[in-house]
Amino acid sequence: MDLSALISGIKLGDRLALAKAITLIESSKQKDRMAAMQLITELYDHRKNAIRLGITGIPGVGKSTFIEKLGKHITSLGLRVAVLAVDPSSSRSSGSILGDKTRMEELSRDPHAFIRPSPSGGTLGGIAARTRETMLLCEAAGFDVIIIETVGVGQSETEIINITDCFLMLAMPGTGDELQGIKRGIMESADVIVINKADGDLLDQARKAKKQIEMALHLFPSAESGWQPKVLLASALHNEGISECWKAVNARQKTIEESGWLQSLRKQQQERAFQKMAERSIYEYVFRNLNSQNVVDKLEEGLKQGWLNEFEATLQLLREIN
Amino acid sequence: MDLSALISGIKLGDRLALAKAITLIESSKQKDRMAAMQLITELYDHRKNAIRLGITGIPGVGKSTFIEKLGKHITSLGLRVAVLAVDPSSSRSSGSILGDKTRMEELSRDPHAFIRPSPSGGTLGGIAARTRETMLLCEAAGFDVIIIETVGVGQSETEIINITDCFLMLAMPGTGDELQGIKRGIMESADVIVINKADGDLLDQARKAKKQIEMALHLFPSAESGWQPKVLLASALHNEGISECWKAVNARQKTIEESGWLQSLRKQQQERAFQKMAERSIYEYVFRNLNSQNVVDKLEEGLKQGWLNEFEATLQLLREIN
Repeated sequence: MDLSALISGIKLGDRLALAKAITLIESSKQKDRMAAMQLITELYDHRKNAIRLGITGIPGVGKSTFIEKLGKHITSLGLRVAVLAVDPSSSRSSGSILGDKTRMEELSRDPHAFIRPSPSGGTLGGIAARTRETMLLCEAAGFDVIIIETVGVGQSETEIINITDCFLMLAMPGTGDELQGIKRGIMESADVIVINKADGDLLDQARKAKKQIEMALHLFPSAESGWQPKVLLASALHNEGISECWKAVNARQKTIEESGWLQSLRKQQQERAFQKMAERSIYEYVFRNLNSQNVVDKLEEGLKQGWLNEFEATLQLLREIN
Repeated sequence: MDLSALISGIKLGDRLALAKAITLIESSKQKDRMAAMQLITELYDHRKNAIRLGITGIPGVGKSTFIEKLGKHITSLGLRVAVLAVDPSSSRSSGSILGDKTRMEELSRDPHAFIRPSPSGGTLGGIAARTRETMLLCEAAGFDVIIIETVGVGQSETEIINITDCFLMLAMPGTGDELQGIKRGIMESADVIVINKADGDLLDQARKAKKQIEMALHLFPSAESGWQPKVLLASALHNEGISECWKAVNARQKTIEESGWLQSLRKQQQERAFQKMAERSIYEYVFRNLNSQNVVDKLEEGLKQGWLNEFEATLQLLREIN
């Protein structure tokens, strides 16, 4: 692959070059990995200072519709938006949550929008690392807003918080029981909570849910970032409340830029990314050289079945590489 | 050091042998590390099936008094208890939170109790790993209950959750503002919440706080473990509510044992511990062999100062080991 062609293509905002580069990032071949790191390094200082927005919510909350409407609102303001999806279940199911291109039909036809599903397979930490790299490429391609979408059913929210500036949670109208499926603790990490489907018969319930969530949030201290979480009502279906959501995201960004939180947050995220990459790279390097990946598989099997404990497994591993 | 003497000493519940073995675990010398892993491996199948209880709370909440009274209650039931402290700030301050032996004077004199401060220095993840190993040794020495204490001011609660069965959070009477200092999201991870200092003038406030927390918790779905978090009142100073707290911990343990959650939780924790140890060991092995630890220091300095990005740093590291 011609790296310099890809680099100049991305700098010009060429979508085909961007798509090709992302495929390179998603490859687990060692040669591709080195090329991908080279590519990102070359583009690193050409990145736009984008807003990195994480969005989560349980299935059925109306995530696709909300992101489509929010995306259209963003492009209507003359900004370019990229939507990346982290789907921990994609390796199991037939396709990732954004695999079905028709899901955000209108937005996917918008020349100022770019939609890309997450790489399938791999561990969640690995997927998040690749998503972060894809995000950096999108910034180099001139996108102003990067939306990282995930299904709110597991650990993926934590991963999203580690790579974004702002965490928006979509909820549904209703009280306690209807909020089921939201992992405990996740709501407490949200910077903006949007109660979607706040229309028609559900409007009253949505208002009540808003108050309840605000009360629950009030029990917790304000974050170090200087930002107090906002709870908003919206109806993505009727395109209502979308601009208010976007305003809240912008207000948060302004607050954390001015407080210096954004800069230190991104520095932390960068250092974390390096440490993970360094450990992972060295780990992989050792195993490639020893051609002993099956050793680890065997040890993990031993742990699962219980004929090895974690210390025996580590000692055996060290004996292997010594 | 004579490993076999340590091993037989620990099996007999000898406190001096246990203390020596913990010192071995805390050493960062490669020779000691190998010996420590050997030691734990030898003792692994001699462990008691203890209750692993994590306790956190902000400074001033009355943690020492509560743990002393809970510990005394546990020993009064004929059980043996070990208290280990994870203190992320211990490397900065002059001593760890349990360094001052007089802090739990009565419990520290109890022949059925064992109190040990966390190793100072090292990263939090490393401290947690050593604490987990110390916990396994305490189980081998026949302790029935292991209490892991941490100050509720940072990331240490997450680390504690990764090595314990049950997470007990101490709170203070009062509404919203008084709960300040509790990291957002932590309360949502608690299995048992105890409002301490529920006596005298504060009793009314404590009752109100209990209701508020119960309401806030109600917004979140019950955990996968099958356990619904409990909120309790206590006054450690007046030794009130302590046995109820212990009953709640036992009830939780029974619930998750019967639901099978405990077994799968511990399996997950074991696999996580192996992966961390394997990555860490290989990382350290490579650096020892290359004698190039200063390379990483330099790269991290470059990141901090901004003349390197995380990808350049990783590429340079790989060039170094190739």
